[in-house]
Amino acid sequence: MLHPDEQDISLFAVMTALNDPVRLGIVTALGAQPEVACHRFDLPVGKSTASRHFRVLREAGVIRQRDEGTRRINSLRRPELDRRFPGFLDLVLREATANDKATR
Amino acid sequence: MLHPDEQDISLFAVMTALNDPVRLGIVTALGAQPEVACHRFDLPVGKSTASRHFRVLREAGVIRQRDEGTRRINSLRRPELDRRFPGFLDLVLREATANDKATR
Repeated sequence: MLHPDEQDISLFAVMTALNDPVRLGIVTALGAQPEVACHRFDLPVGKSTASRHFRVLREAGVIRQRDEGTRRINSLRRPELDRRFPGFLDLVLREATANDKATR
Repeated sequence: MLHPDEQDISLFAVMTALNDPVRLGIVTALGAQPEVACHRFDLPVGKSTASRHFRVLREAGVIRQRDEGTRRINSLRRPELDRRFPGFLDLVLREATANDKATR
């Protein structure tokens, strides 16, 4: 699996990765729970589309994935993102949660 | 001309507006100079495409436009963006400038 090094994470690649409601939902869920297996997400898309969304987030440097037996575990790369783009992830999580509440 | 009110500016609309090299170039130029007329930008696109890019930035709340005679003057909505999304605009300008240097 490809994970970009911390210094290679691009703010614009991260913003592009977040520019999708499914991926933003994944990130919001990971903001609330440190580690979540792929199959535990209740996503409104099929399995291969879901895998693609996880991959986009991973290749942009937003999440880290590791395999544990047959499960693939996801976590936010919060320490790296906070170092590279201070305050950005908190803003995104805050706004995503606010939007989510506004549309319910 | 439509300008969203400060409280209606959406971080995701702003990120989407910035997700284009021409628009990012406009924003970077406005980060260095407080007010720039549309015709003063040296953009790699035709006039109507350029107008569209300015409109996207304006409707997302990134820039303010005002007409002065036959000229349309642009400025960043920095105070509003800094209040709504502290640190975000500075991050974008810093990363855009860094990328620009890296690719020359």
